[in-house]
Formats: sequence, C-alpha cells, structure tokens
Amino acid sequence: MIVSFSSTLFVEGGEWKPTWTTGAAEEAEEVAAIPCSGHGRAYLDGLVLNGHEPVCECNSCYSGLDCSNFSTDCVANAMSGDPYFLEPFWMKHAASSAVLVSGWHRMGYTYSDGSYISELLVKYIQKLHDTVGNAVTEGKYIIFGGGSTQLLSAAVYALSPNTAVSPAKVVATAPYYPMYRIQTQFFNSRDFSYEGDTTLWKNISVNDTTRFIEFATSPNNPEGKLTKALLNGSNVKTIYDHAYYWPHFTPIPSPSDEDLMVFTISKLTGHAGTRFGWAIIKDEEVYLKMLTYVQLNTMGISREAQLRALKLLDVVLEREGREIFEFGYKIMRDRWMRLKKVLSKSTRFSLQKLSPQYCSFFKRVRDPSPAYAWVKCERQEDNNCYEILEAASINGAEGIAFSADNRYVRLSLIRSQDDFEILINKLRILVSKE
Amino acid sequence: MIVSFSSTLFVEGGEWKPTWTTGAAEEAEEVAAIPCSGHGRAYLDGLVLNGHEPVCECNSCYSGLDCSNFSTDCVANAMSGDPYFLEPFWMKHAASSAVLVSGWHRMGYTYSDGSYISELLVKYIQKLHDTVGNAVTEGKYIIFGGGSTQLLSAAVYALSPNTAVSPAKVVATAPYYPMYRIQTQFFNSRDFSYEGDTTLWKNISVNDTTRFIEFATSPNNPEGKLTKALLNGSNVKTIYDHAYYWPHFTPIPSPSDEDLMVFTISKLTGHAGTRFGWAIIKDEEVYLKMLTYVQLNTMGISREAQLRALKLLDVVLEREGREIFEFGYKIMRDRWMRLKKVLSKSTRFSLQKLSPQYCSFFKRVRDPSPAYAWVKCERQEDNNCYEILEAASINGAEGIAFSADNRYVRLSLIRSQDDFEILINKLRILVSKE
Repeated sequence: MIVSFSSTLFVEGGEWKPTWTTGAAEEAEEVAAIPCSGHGRAYLDGLVLNGHEPVCECNSCYSGLDCSNFSTDCVANAMSGDPYFLEPFWMKHAASSAVLVSGWHRMGYTYSDGSYISELLVKYIQKLHDTVGNAVTEGKYIIFGGGSTQLLSAAVYALSPNTAVSPAKVVATAPYYPMYRIQTQFFNSRDFSYEGDTTLWKNISVNDTTRFIEFATSPNNPEGKLTKALLNGSNVKTIYDHAYYWPHFTPIPSPSDEDLMVFTISKLTGHAGTRFGWAIIKDEEVYLKMLTYVQLNTMGISREAQLRALKLLDVVLEREGREIFEFGYKIMRDRWMRLKKVLSKSTRFSLQKLSPQYCSFFKRVRDPSPAYAWVKCERQEDNNCYEILEAASINGAEGIAFSADNRYVRLSLIRSQDDFEILINKLRILVSKE
Repeated sequence: MIVSFSSTLFVEGGEWKPTWTTGAAEEAEEVAAIPCSGHGRAYLDGLVLNGHEPVCECNSCYSGLDCSNFSTDCVANAMSGDPYFLEPFWMKHAASSAVLVSGWHRMGYTYSDGSYISELLVKYIQKLHDTVGNAVTEGKYIIFGGGSTQLLSAAVYALSPNTAVSPAKVVATAPYYPMYRIQTQFFNSRDFSYEGDTTLWKNISVNDTTRFIEFATSPNNPEGKLTKALLNGSNVKTIYDHAYYWPHFTPIPSPSDEDLMVFTISKLTGHAGTRFGWAIIKDEEVYLKMLTYVQLNTMGISREAQLRALKLLDVVLEREGREIFEFGYKIMRDRWMRLKKVLSKSTRFSLQKLSPQYCSFFKRVRDPSPAYAWVKCERQEDNNCYEILEAASINGAEGIAFSADNRYVRLSLIRSQDDFEILINKLRILVSKE
C-alpha cells in the first residue's frame, strides 16, 4: 500500500508495539502455519477440528487430517477454472499482500465522493493497464462489478434499447463461454433475447435496425486464441471479454482499445473468490446505465473486496508487473509444453494449435501458455470426448457447454500444481494405452 | 473468532513474535491513530495527502485537513441510511473485530463443499437468530447475497412462474422502500411486472390464477411499524424484508416464521459497505432458483465480505448479543426521544405514532427507537414537505419516493452522532420560528 508513515505513536525503544491488531495478526499467522502436508490449506473461516484447530482443506486426491493421504484411483479435476496456479506467488509475497481490516472500516454505503467505487482503486487499474499495455483507459470510464460476471449482464442491459418492440439480439461465436447465453436467457428481459451463434447473423442486411450485441472473448475461452468481433455495422455493439488478456496466458500484441472491455481480478491475480471485476467504457451513456444496473442489483461491490484488490494490485505493480507475469507465464508455459509432449504421442487426442507470437509486454516472441487445453477426440467412434476422458478418471468440461461439438473437451490448466500433476499423469496413462 | 491455539510456533521468550503480518498490522494501527478531530476518519484505502498520510474523510458540515472546521450554514444530512450510529461500538471493540486477510485467503470460486456459501457463517446466522429470537431458521435454507438488495431481486425471479403468458404481478403497500419498484421495473423480465400498490389488488378474486408477489417490510421502512402482508391466497407469495427486525429498532414480539425472509448485515452491525445479506427460505425449489440467480448474477458473494461478516457476528454473539443491541437501542431511543421533544412544540410538523411494546429479546416493555422519522407537514399550504425542510437546510427523502404523499419526508436517524446533532439543531431552529 502506498501509505508510509514517520509516525512515532507506537514506537517504544525503537520497536513498534501492536495494540488492537495483535489478536487478528496472531490468528492469521497461526492458521497460515498449519502445513497440511503442502497438499491443502487451512483458512481463518474454515470449519474447526477438536474445537480449536481449523480443518485442512485438501487438494483433489489428497485426504486425511493433514492431507497426507494420496489416492491414485481418484478423478483428476480439470473442470473448473479455479486459478490456484498463482497461490504460491501470494504465499511468497505474504508480507506485502496481507491486509488488516478494522471493525469500523468503511461502514457506509458510499465512498467520500458519494460513489460505490474506490477512486484510488480506479487509479491503480489505470496504472496497471498502462504498465501491461493491454488496454487503453485514457478518456474512458471505469466501473466495478461482482467479478466480470455481473458486468457481462450489466453490459447487455446497458446496450439494449428500451423497446419491447424490438429486443436486442445477443449473440456469440462458438466455442464460447457458456455464461453469455445462460445469463441472457435466465434474466429474460423484455429488452433482449439470446439469438444463437454469431455466424447465423453474419450475412444480415446492414440496413437492419435491430440492435445486435455480440460477445467477443479475446483470448477466447476455451481455446486461447486472440479474436475479433464478427459483426459490423452501426446497429452492432460488442462486449469484449478480456478476462484472459494478461501476459500469463497470451501474447499482448497491442493495447485493446474497444468501446466496452471487461476484465476481472480472478484470472489476473488468481483471486476468483474476491468477486472483483471492472469494465472500461467509452460511451458515457452506456457507463451510466451500467452504474445504474450495479446500483439496483447490489448497491456496488463489497468494500472489503475493493480494499483487498487494492492491496493485491499494489503487489502486482511492483517492478512494473514483471514478477507476477513472469511467475505466471513460466508456470503456464511449462504446463502447456508438458501437455503437448504427452499428447504428441497420441493420434487419438489432439490439442488446439497455438503459435509463438511477439508480446509487447515481455518485448520478445513468447511460446503459447493458454489457460485451457481444448482437446479433440479424433477417432470416428469417440463422439463424446467427455465420456472417453471420464472413463480415464479425467473430469473436464464438455464441448457442448461451449456450444461446440462433443468431440471437444476443455481441460483447465490453471488449477493447483497437484491437480495438474494428476491430470498429466492420467493423460500419460491414457495415451500409453493407444 | 473461535480459533484458539496452543501452538508454540511463534513464541519466543514467552512472547508472540509476528512475522509476515507485521506490516499490515502496523499500517492499520497507524491509519486508525489519525484522529480527524473526532469528526471524520482516515481509511487504509483513502486518498493520500503529501504522498504519505491518508486524508481525513470528514462528517457532513466538518472540513479541513483534520476535520476541525465546523460550518453552521451547511445542510443537515438526513437523507441516506448509512448506519454510522454503530461505528463507536466497533471502535470500542477494535481488538475483537479486526481481521487479517492473507494474500492467499480463499482464491478459488468455491468453498470446500463446492458452494459459494461459508458453512460456518450459516451456522453463525442460525445461532444469531436463535439468540435474538427474531426468526425461525430450523428446517429452512439460507443463502447469501450482495446486501439484501440482490436477494430482493433474486426472490422476485424465484417466485415468478416461467411463463410469458401471465407474468407475476409484483406489489407493495405505500409507503414502501422504493427499491422494490425500481428493481422490478429496471430488470424488466418477461416473467414479472410491477403492478403498483397492494391496495389496488385487495379485492381481487381468490380464483385469479395470476401469481402475485407482495413485498412486506416489517418493521416498515420508512415509518418503523411492524406489518403483515395484505394479500392472501394460494396464488400469492410474500417476500418479507426484515432488514430492520433487530432489537435496536423495534420490539421483537416473536420470531418471524415466514416462507421467505430477507435480512442484511447493514442494519444489524452497521456494515452497509460490506454488501452482505441473507435470505431464509422454506421451499427448496425457491431456494434453488435463488441460488441459480446469485450464481449467474455474481457467482456468489465476495469471500472477504463473508470472512468479515463472520468476525463481526462473532462479536455480536458475545454475551448473547446483549452488548450491541443495548448499545444500539440506547442510541436510537435517545435520538427518538429528543426528536419527539423538539417536534412536540410544533403544530406544523408531526411524527409517526409509535407505542412502547413488549420485546421478547429485552424481556421488557421498551420505548420506540425507529431507524427513521416519518415527518408530516400539517399546514394546508405545505404540500411539499421536502422543500420546506430543504429551505431550513435539512436534507431528507421525499414522500413520493416511498409512493406516499409529498406532505411526508423521511429523516434518517441512524447516521453519525454529528449528523444527528446537526439535524436536531436545524429542526429546533425551524420549530422555534413557528
């Protein structure tokens, strides 16, 4: 944090003496000191064993009070995108990333400027994008949401014209992140409706006055390729989901300068549980409508989440981001290389093709390091790839969830090292049986 | 927190030695030590002065670097419901309410049971309701939301039948909290629509198969009276908003045992900025649909908010809640008494009538202590009471916002002591001019 004092209030004999923070600090240190054999963690708010010590929460395939029992016949968890690969980074930066919240920290609804948005955190986010070079923030508005999740929905509302006569058509290009479709259908507004794949609408008349809202994910979830929107025209608005547009996962060719871009801390620092995302918006009217959405939906975002995001970004910004991105990139690249090597021996399974590309952040050509593997089952008879992998004790995400063919399965590469080792091991066994 | 160790890991010469938590603890103590003349606070995430010390954020009518300048010609802020009246309680309980969040605290999307909801926090909430005796939780489901705000909307979605043929009719009884109407209209779902005041629908046929969703707020915001839903019938579902059903604000005649009850930490502990609310739900199907809503809307609630709520409720539960509720009740009762006394000299302004009533929590008859004054301008010509008060430098909330007559104004009594003193002073001057 940028706060630094010359205060001598708590200094005695040259040493700082804590008063009211002692208990909280002690509690946190003691929980952190529970080792869980390196295959799990204990948390301050975990369930408690024997009435005193918090329970170790073990990684998949590990069990026992201290997570020391490994089970070889368990299922590899490669389904969800929990970004535990960055956990060791934060353990390494324990001192600089810790934050102590006082009982009276920001009790009111708003910050001193009457908004739900920390002005300081906005400045950090602008600095971050300038440093990484992945988005243009100058002259644009920034708003916060409960993860990118809330902002995706807010954006659809804000971009829809308020006319029940002609609801906006919401589209995305397969394979795509299922949330776009599911949210749009569930909230079921009179102002918009989900209208399937973008490709169905590619050749529509440019004179069509119906509003189109296209989701473009770059790099794409699942397969990690940089993409652009497909539709053009004055009646088309695009929501750029840049959740993965960070140097861990992708080369950054140039700063994105789109009208509406959504980012999230989940895939930047790995703090999915914080539920903190932001949108960068060019148009004031769209920005104001998104602000209204977040106000009426949740009255802004938890102050604790904003405080923690501030602390985490402060660490990210150290040495101009080099440390976290080099750390993250190294892990993701290694995992991709190992996975490629295992599957290179297979004719049954193939991986998406990704090429080395110049990255303006690292200032060099870098190897691919995607967040997910997009595996295809190549054999004619393997038309449900999810089931094929499931039979080999690998739990991925079905192709159809991404509106793609079930010959595809998404495997998450961003989970803990334990999860990745188990996954690669199961894959090696599966390939060896071909 | 219930964690207590016999660990000797960090003990040296009989004294605990902090390691990685020192910086965070020191930072928090130093910010807390900035006095702001007792008329403001400095926060860890406040903007920074001179490049090092955080700026004091001053209460209304106070200004200057240390909030020591009082301006008599400023406006009394009695508009919003920021619950700063409980801030001194948390300053008094600084040691037990502080929480230190490590950099790697709960990075994943879910808790170890795969949910977005802390099991431990659910237990605390159940214990709290049992202790206070204000709600029956046994055999019911509990879910969390971003304040009660998100849950009100989730409940409307969950209670609406999925049929565009006959959308649910959402109603409330004036005067009522404006959010019910504004949310329902803004989200504009094909599954429901806002249909005005409950009284318009009181005499509808019981054979009507259209689903009605009635909001009932008890005690009511604005005027603090305990209420019941007006509509009955198998086609009617009620959402009980119990934000103010705590011993600070109202007698608790008996535990509420409704099918769908919404609570929030904002008005319980005063932490509006945390955005933490919960709903207690009888019907499994409704519970599951509300879970889906929160999942698709924000993927659950910030882990930091849940951790802090846990810590705060741990303090609330000390001595079976007696301390916080006695503290809160005393302040609210005193404010109400003083306000009544000032307005008793007026024929121009009147207050809502509230009577002493037996409270099962305090086990005695208690005086009224409402969160808001619902002031009426009695003179024929004073048909816009908001403007009358505004001319006297008092900023309240207009009657029409609560779908009531503009002869009414809501004045917030739950803000800081500074705000209340300024308000009472302005009112005294106004009444003296009659």
